[in-house]
Amino acid sequence: RYGYFGRDTPEMVNLMFCNVSGCLTEGRIFLSVSGEEMVSINTRDTMGIRMLQKEDVEVVLLTSSVDPVAHLLAEKLTERTGCQVMQVGEEPLDTLKLLVEQRKLDWKDVAYMGNDKPDVNCLNLAGLSAVPRDAPVVAINAAKYTCRSVGGKGAMREFAEHILLQKEKARSLMKRDRIDRKNF
Amino acid sequence: RYGYFGRDTPEMVNLMFCNVSGCLTEGRIFLSVSGEEMVSINTRDTMGIRMLQKEDVEVVLLTSSVDPVAHLLAEKLTERTGCQVMQVGEEPLDTLKLLVEQRKLDWKDVAYMGNDKPDVNCLNLAGLSAVPRDAPVVAINAAKYTCRSVGGKGAMREFAEHILLQKEKARSLMKRDRIDRKNF
Amino acid sequence: RYGYFGRDTPEMVNLMFCNVSGCLTEGRIFLSVSGEEMVSINTRDTMGIRMLQKEDVEVVLLTSSVDPVAHLLAEKLTERTGCQVMQVGEEPLDTLKLLVEQRKLDWKDVAYMGNDKPDVNCLNLAGLSAVPRDAPVVAINAAKYTCRSVGGKGAMREFAEHILLQKEKARSLMKRDRIDRKNF
Amino acid sequence: RYGYFGRDTPEMVNLMFCNVSGCLTEGRIFLSVSGEEMVSINTRDTMGIRMLQKEDVEVVLLTSSVDPVAHLLAEKLTERTGCQVMQVGEEPLDTLKLLVEQRKLDWKDVAYMGNDKPDVNCLNLAGLSAVPRDAPVVAINAAKYTCRSVGGKGAMREFAEHILLQKEKARSLMKRDRIDRKNF
Repeated sequence: RYGYFGRDTPEMVNLMFCNVSGCLTEGRIFLSVSGEEMVSINTRDTMGIRMLQKEDVEVVLLTSSVDPVAHLLAEKLTERTGCQVMQVGEEPLDTLKLLVEQRKLDWKDVAYMGNDKPDVNCLNLAGLSAVPRDAPVVAINAAKYTCRSVGGKGAMREFAEHILLQKEKARSLMKRDRIDRKNF
Repeated sequence: RYGYFGRDTPEMVNLMFCNVSGCLTEGRIFLSVSGEEMVSINTRDTMGIRMLQKEDVEVVLLTSSVDPVAHLLAEKLTERTGCQVMQVGEEPLDTLKLLVEQRKLDWKDVAYMGNDKPDVNCLNLAGLSAVPRDAPVVAINAAKYTCRSVGGKGAMREFAEHILLQKEKARSLMKRDRIDRKNF
Repeated sequence: RYGYFGRDTPEMVNLMFCNVSGCLTEGRIFLSVSGEEMVSINTRDTMGIRMLQKEDVEVVLLTSSVDPVAHLLAEKLTERTGCQVMQVGEEPLDTLKLLVEQRKLDWKDVAYMGNDKPDVNCLNLAGLSAVPRDAPVVAINAAKYTCRSVGGKGAMREFAEHILLQKEKARSLMKRDRIDRKNF
Repeated sequence: RYGYFGRDTPEMVNLMFCNVSGCLTEGRIFLSVSGEEMVSINTRDTMGIRMLQKEDVEVVLLTSSVDPVAHLLAEKLTERTGCQVMQVGEEPLDTLKLLVEQRKLDWKDVAYMGNDKPDVNCLNLAGLSAVPRDAPVVAINAAKYTCRSVGGKGAMREFAEHILLQKEKARSLMKRDRIDRKNF
């Protein structure tokens, strides 16, 4: 049930998009009687983001226009993770297409982590894509990788380690190719 | 243990009642020393409500007179879900009977999600009814559908998908009936 | 592993003691940077308390001198559950012995729910005693009933249903005895 | 998968280091819209700390410079647990080496509980070392003991019981040795 169902040749990801709600958080929103709203994130996941950044993978966090909480926490998330936080509409692809083109990247070099119906197109398009274990079936079917961890409790970290493993594989493959070419 | 134990002919639901405490929330109340009270809801569940509303199913949220927190959060829940929030007494059926009559609906066209003893009569009466996995036995026995998800963590979403599936089945059945009648 | 390991003759409980921390709550304390402290309780468990009170079982909640949070929430817990909240020291038995004597009760007519080392003596002494599933081994070994639910998520409710079942059994046994005596 | 993979001769620990984030807490940080930040700890774990202190094991809590929340809560944690709270950098060993030397202790008499990559060196060096069940693989591989409990929900307590068991074993071994020496 879990694991990676992508291409044979490993991907060399330089840019990652991650949905805040349900991926970096559990998708839970705490509402208080006095009007306060809270979400929770995990240090294991922010550590995963830092691991990606060290290997020159830019991480962009996505909040949805239908989920106002994550949006209000954008500044705090940037401060904690060093990531840009971007607001997307009902179809995240519309916003992200431009950004990927601007950076002159191919979608196969992009990683995407989502957890519900609106993420389906991006999950299909990205070279590496993942959902937390507790995502709805519609999202699991579109993703190339299903995490063993649930959202807000290590799923982002697990995907980060998967991306770094793929990068390493791609690098050693490139190296071998160069050696082969030199020898023959 | 899980699954649907209802009638053979699928239901065409137009109105859904959902208990806030224990169905939309986990049933947990956070109490603080300074007097603050909090509950948590899940974006996956609010997405489920939006999916129902798009297919013209009206969703009414129920709070109980014995659970003051959910009641105080009514306004906030309405803002987030677009649902009317209604306060019911120890027997929700007393209040809901009137509402169902007013809308000239039959109880077989009503969906009900509850999670404890007071919900038993409504769970028995409604055409489609469900409880979260972690509901007490008395409620599980009365419901037609037992969710795989627990309250506040996807149970509402799971039931929403079940309702929409039943509606689709009912529609395709009606269509087939019309074709059959035309051909013979 | 779970279930009841008590006497053959059912108990007729009139008084129940329940540890707040770890039984009614999960044992978790939320600490905030600004100095706020929170715990969480479950509506399923408060419903269990109400079920006991309806059947004339007095429920007394216990907080420990080493756990200041629950103590500060005493008033709020009383308001929500209608229970007296009592502070006990490192050996709860010292305080409770007096109370049981005052009410002219026998310890076999008392139910006790605890979740750690300090509760061991009371768990051994009480006619009915229980621990949540996630209690340390030392407490599990002393209790007559191990709940399937964890603390703060239905353990109190489960034990309440067990107590009511035992009361009902005791009542029908007494009734049968009276009939037998009349007939012979 | 779980259990102890250390030396045959039991350890006599006098000093324990425990990472706050992910070991004493779940690693989750609650962020609120108004700027509040929260973590949660468990009374079962603070009870474990108290058990160690009673047996003359000094417990020092560690917070990381990359996790500002735990640092802000240091004072509160000291108040609740009676432990010194120490801030460490990216390599905790650099700070702790000095402290262990100052107390004239050997690293085999030190216990260490960590939960991620930065803890690897300390986990390798300490005589007894543990990680919560939900730690990343890199930390699990370095630790001598993998807890059955997850961080913030009893892992610290489980390790405390393990340390005390080892101490008791070491003591009875020493006693036996003395008796043997006297007899022969």
